[in-house]
Amino acid sequence: MSDVDALRALNQRYSRAIDARDMDELTALFDPAGSVDGARGSSSVPDYLEMTRTSPRVFEQSMHVLGDPLIEHTEGSDIARLDTYAVVYQLGRVEGGDDMVLGIRYLDDVRRLDGKWRIHHRQAVMLWARDKL
Amino acid sequence: MSDVDALRALNQRYSRAIDARDMDELTALFDPAGSVDGARGSSSVPDYLEMTRTSPRVFEQSMHVLGDPLIEHTEGSDIARLDTYAVVYQLGRVEGGDDMVLGIRYLDDVRRLDGKWRIHHRQAVMLWARDKL
Amino acid sequence: MSDVDALRALNQRYSRAIDARDMDELTALFDPAGSVDGARGSSSVPDYLEMTRTSPRVFEQSMHVLGDPLIEHTEGSDIARLDTYAVVYQLGRVEGGDDMVLGIRYLDDVRRLDGKWRIHHRQAVMLWARDKL
Repeated sequence: MSDVDALRALNQRYSRAIDARDMDELTALFDPAGSVDGARGSSSVPDYLEMTRTSPRVFEQSMHVLGDPLIEHTEGSDIARLDTYAVVYQLGRVEGGDDMVLGIRYLDDVRRLDGKWRIHHRQAVMLWARDKL
Repeated sequence: MSDVDALRALNQRYSRAIDARDMDELTALFDPAGSVDGARGSSSVPDYLEMTRTSPRVFEQSMHVLGDPLIEHTEGSDIARLDTYAVVYQLGRVEGGDDMVLGIRYLDDVRRLDGKWRIHHRQAVMLWARDKL
Repeated sequence: MSDVDALRALNQRYSRAIDARDMDELTALFDPAGSVDGARGSSSVPDYLEMTRTSPRVFEQSMHVLGDPLIEHTEGSDIARLDTYAVVYQLGRVEGGDDMVLGIRYLDDVRRLDGKWRIHHRQAVMLWARDKL
């Protein structure tokens, strides 16, 4: 698989892992020395994973639909940048109420570690959110 | 065109064919010896195509918007697996009423037959559906 | 970067440029000798860019979420065709009122000029529009 194809696969694997709450897979996608900036502020990767694992579900189901990433990568390099538009569907509010749909932009610094691409730094920018589908 | 690029094109061609109800193009995308598991249960490819051709339209228009596929393929191999997130817009209910939007995951076993990639087995998993846009 | 990867990047760059109203970037993506057919009829690229620059914003924010393009390109050729499904979110109507979401299909003739891919002719087909999210 080419580097570019492996980079494309990285965020597609993220989508499926986060939607399934598959913590082993999610852990494999991030650099443990990295960090994530998101709606909850800035966290180290271990803290981000722990919060994801333990936070109560607000919605029964999610679907992270990602567009094609815009990739910056020089052939052979072990670092790259991914800029990915996503529409995130949060469905079936556990305590009742509307679905939510969000527009998010993931800006990721990724690194090749032991031959595998991992997210070293993620900035998840919430562009918009609406309280219904 | 690389194998991976041809695999990406397969489902994009599916989207356009199903949205246009282009039965010749749709037929060309499936292995006639294959099968499709979907909302209507499991069907052989010929039965699936026949049902698609003859079933009355419930909506005037559809748009199958597919994310980037997650591809499993070994260079040179004649088989592959595609895992594709889709948001399907069903618009303009013929008998009146709301639009519908669905979240679907296509899990496809594909094969190269006479040099062309075709869907041998498709599992279309409906993740969610909402009765309005 | 392979031709196909550069072609994929072209429309992803378009999304980000139009959403940011980054006119320099937008200008770099089009062939100045080309044309755009869209909701406002047919325009030369310079006229299209001028209209984009000067037209008052109807919505505070947009997000152009593009699916994977269907690419027609022969290795080494300086021309290609891209067929891209997009869902465009127009959010926060400046004068008040509902958001809008549109289904658009971009049919692009692209050309390599001085080593860079540019949109020579774009046909933006509005498939549907809804006055709410």
